[in-house]
Amino acid sequence: MEKLNARLPRGLSDRGPAEIDAISRIVQTIREVYELYGFEPLETPLIEYSDALGKFLPDQDRPNAGVFSFQDEDKQWLSLRYDLTAPLARFVAENYETITKPFRTYRFGWVFRNEWAGPGRFRQFMQFDADTVGSASPTADAELCMMAADVMERIGVPRGSYAVKINNRKILDGVLESVGLAREDNAERKLTAMRAIDKLDRLGADAVRLLLTKGRFDEAGNFTAGAELTDEQAALVMSIFLAKGADNEQSLTLLAGDENAPELRRAGVAELRQIAELVKAAGYDDGRIVIDPSVVRGLEYYTGTVFEVELTIPLTDESGAPVRFGSVGGGGRYDGLVSRYRSDNVPATGFSIGVSRLLAALKLLGKLDETPRAGPVVVIVFDKSRVADYQAIVTRLRSAGIRSELYVGAAGLNAQMKYADRRRAPCVVIQGPSEREQRIVQIKDLAEGLKAAKTHEEWKQRPWQFAVPEDQLVDAVQQLLERKT
Amino acid sequence: MEKLNARLPRGLSDRGPAEIDAISRIVQTIREVYELYGFEPLETPLIEYSDALGKFLPDQDRPNAGVFSFQDEDKQWLSLRYDLTAPLARFVAENYETITKPFRTYRFGWVFRNEWAGPGRFRQFMQFDADTVGSASPTADAELCMMAADVMERIGVPRGSYAVKINNRKILDGVLESVGLAREDNAERKLTAMRAIDKLDRLGADAVRLLLTKGRFDEAGNFTAGAELTDEQAALVMSIFLAKGADNEQSLTLLAGDENAPELRRAGVAELRQIAELVKAAGYDDGRIVIDPSVVRGLEYYTGTVFEVELTIPLTDESGAPVRFGSVGGGGRYDGLVSRYRSDNVPATGFSIGVSRLLAALKLLGKLDETPRAGPVVVIVFDKSRVADYQAIVTRLRSAGIRSELYVGAAGLNAQMKYADRRRAPCVVIQGPSEREQRIVQIKDLAEGLKAAKTHEEWKQRPWQFAVPEDQLVDAVQQLLERKT
Repeated sequence: MEKLNARLPRGLSDRGPAEIDAISRIVQTIREVYELYGFEPLETPLIEYSDALGKFLPDQDRPNAGVFSFQDEDKQWLSLRYDLTAPLARFVAENYETITKPFRTYRFGWVFRNEWAGPGRFRQFMQFDADTVGSASPTADAELCMMAADVMERIGVPRGSYAVKINNRKILDGVLESVGLAREDNAERKLTAMRAIDKLDRLGADAVRLLLTKGRFDEAGNFTAGAELTDEQAALVMSIFLAKGADNEQSLTLLAGDENAPELRRAGVAELRQIAELVKAAGYDDGRIVIDPSVVRGLEYYTGTVFEVELTIPLTDESGAPVRFGSVGGGGRYDGLVSRYRSDNVPATGFSIGVSRLLAALKLLGKLDETPRAGPVVVIVFDKSRVADYQAIVTRLRSAGIRSELYVGAAGLNAQMKYADRRRAPCVVIQGPSEREQRIVQIKDLAEGLKAAKTHEEWKQRPWQFAVPEDQLVDAVQQLLERKT
Repeated sequence: MEKLNARLPRGLSDRGPAEIDAISRIVQTIREVYELYGFEPLETPLIEYSDALGKFLPDQDRPNAGVFSFQDEDKQWLSLRYDLTAPLARFVAENYETITKPFRTYRFGWVFRNEWAGPGRFRQFMQFDADTVGSASPTADAELCMMAADVMERIGVPRGSYAVKINNRKILDGVLESVGLAREDNAERKLTAMRAIDKLDRLGADAVRLLLTKGRFDEAGNFTAGAELTDEQAALVMSIFLAKGADNEQSLTLLAGDENAPELRRAGVAELRQIAELVKAAGYDDGRIVIDPSVVRGLEYYTGTVFEVELTIPLTDESGAPVRFGSVGGGGRYDGLVSRYRSDNVPATGFSIGVSRLLAALKLLGKLDETPRAGPVVVIVFDKSRVADYQAIVTRLRSAGIRSELYVGAAGLNAQMKYADRRRAPCVVIQGPSEREQRIVQIKDLAEGLKAAKTHEEWKQRPWQFAVPEDQLVDAVQQLLERKT
């Protein structure tokens, strides 16, 4: 019979104990911060109707690429969620009458993107979101920004090495409107302009200027069409997203423009100013939260405040080469998402952390504890006919809360030692025939433990193997474990 | 524009704080027990190649019902995992050279079944598995059985109200072989027989006897074909799975038969006997782990030890009607699963808990703590123009680790109180103009807190509203929270 080839589809990966532990610590920390801010947990399934996710294209018989989709028995299209925001909008619409508003929830879990997955790009990854639905107030946005900063610090990213950068889409929308790219009319050109601005960090101002006007050839010679603005129009747009001042107050002045500024732009600046005031009142205006007019956020559904959390210190990879890291999370106001279901307006604002991104950030910053965890105490099977005795020993250790296992393989003594070493067992417990007669057990401190000894003195004081009476086994192992921590 | 209808596909559900908290406690407890036994975490993605899951039918152009499947861009079929065992087999085969064997891991997460989902049946649910790969020894099985018992008790199921029931498929296989249903030859009839035996609990002995012989009409008049055994053959098979003695020793004697018993049956009994010895040595033979020859486990891939964890006390639902609960988990030995990938034999044994089943069991047993969690302290927005002051108050509370939030809605004072009450806030903090002048704040203990007072005396001692100087706010709230716990 032909054997199957064991492999994973591209863009998917397995995770071992070290990564699982690290992610679990991050998730637990984020949860604590979100709860401190009064958000409550909510969970939605991983599968939704495709139309609820807003990616269903009516003129295609299959939902478009980007999401994993499949048909239900009744021929309706289902999709794996690609973020945690669209499912929340569905939940809110479905339970609108019964939920307490403003509705403050957090959610975390896997999301899926059916995309080309290059190195470090995954088709399944974890997000951790918090959202406030039913509040149009900038106070809700400000709370999210401060919470984002708190998450970074609680997770171990030092103050000064990150920033929560905020902006307001109404400002840019107002300016784009004034150069003829109103929201509905020129959707395609507007999107081109937004995408161009979103690339400022990566491509620089000159390239963005080209993308706003007549288009641009990249280094590979590929042409990207432009938004077809005139040079003056492009200059006006550029002036807005380059309007970063020395502090929030100066940025606000630059963004405000004169009294002829379009209504939308003035509304955006007013909201941004209110957030800045709240941030100041809470003491987060020390560089933790800064107004940055270049923040756009790619997703089309944002309608007001937008923000991104970024590492701000120079980073290098293992070979010393500089690393462009991008954001670890972001969010903003999406007042239109719930109204896909309801005729009334339901304002909402949210924040999403990429958990794997945060893990990668910690790693780059050298803030990730990568010490492998200690293994269990291994009880050696010296004599196969006495395995019930060994089982009783393990049970006693476990009853005392000591992580331990009976060796369940078929190998001999040396291979069992090697196994225990590879499991990073703090010690093994051995009982041969003569020990059994004397009712004692041997406790053997393994290499891993010896390596942990810092000095030769310490090593000498800690005998690598010693015998204790059977009834003192638990105490002896407990003492050994305490010495190791 | 037409509005979308907010709804979930059948068999999927949302979860609120109470259920999330309960599941999170269960998951944490299972994790602790599995780790105590020396198992280490492993995570595999939710998507696998369909052929790795073993449900791909080559004569169909779509993987069969039962799994959610979709084609990748390269036309290969992908599926959502339907259990955590098949992905483990794929992982082990893919990493066989580098893993430490015996390989002891645990995994938990969502699995999916594309089935008709009735009430209480879900298409997405959570499993928590532990497996030992690379050990053919019954010690590995015994460890899993004891671990299953420990999980039940740590989760809050009292000793005596559950049992881990063990059996060995080789015994039944040996008997089925002796009545002409050998493993390969009569796959269809053998499966019919296995399914019949698996229904003993539900349908009773008479119905099973019919299903083993000429078939049976159910109450609705539908006919189920039988395994076409003769009456004597059926009686022999029945004698085996009814061979439960007063204790494990007696069951073993009944199962062993005479010296003419087929080799396979004798091997199965020997394995079962070894497990019984280990269980006894560890003290788990007090009814926690019992030999039960009626346990079969539906899945075809089991090859030796099988076991199930069941509630053993009479249960009733909310209306007092008796409830058939079935198992909360089970497992067994599947020595053939990894060999789908490899030519050598890789013995393996595993255990799977249905987390939602366990939650339902706790609920039925009245062991589920369903007290809703307390909400955050809510800082009331008395005067919208002073919101920055209120923000500063919230920030002080949070800095002291007190779960709290600024009211971010647009409602007036009364509606804010109602909001705080619905959030189950332990208290609200209010500062009006006169309080601000005096630099004090009002702390208002809400209904939820008043209800918690056990006596009138206690109620009188706890003023429902009191004022404190601004700089004593944190202490005062902390004291109030302590009184409530």
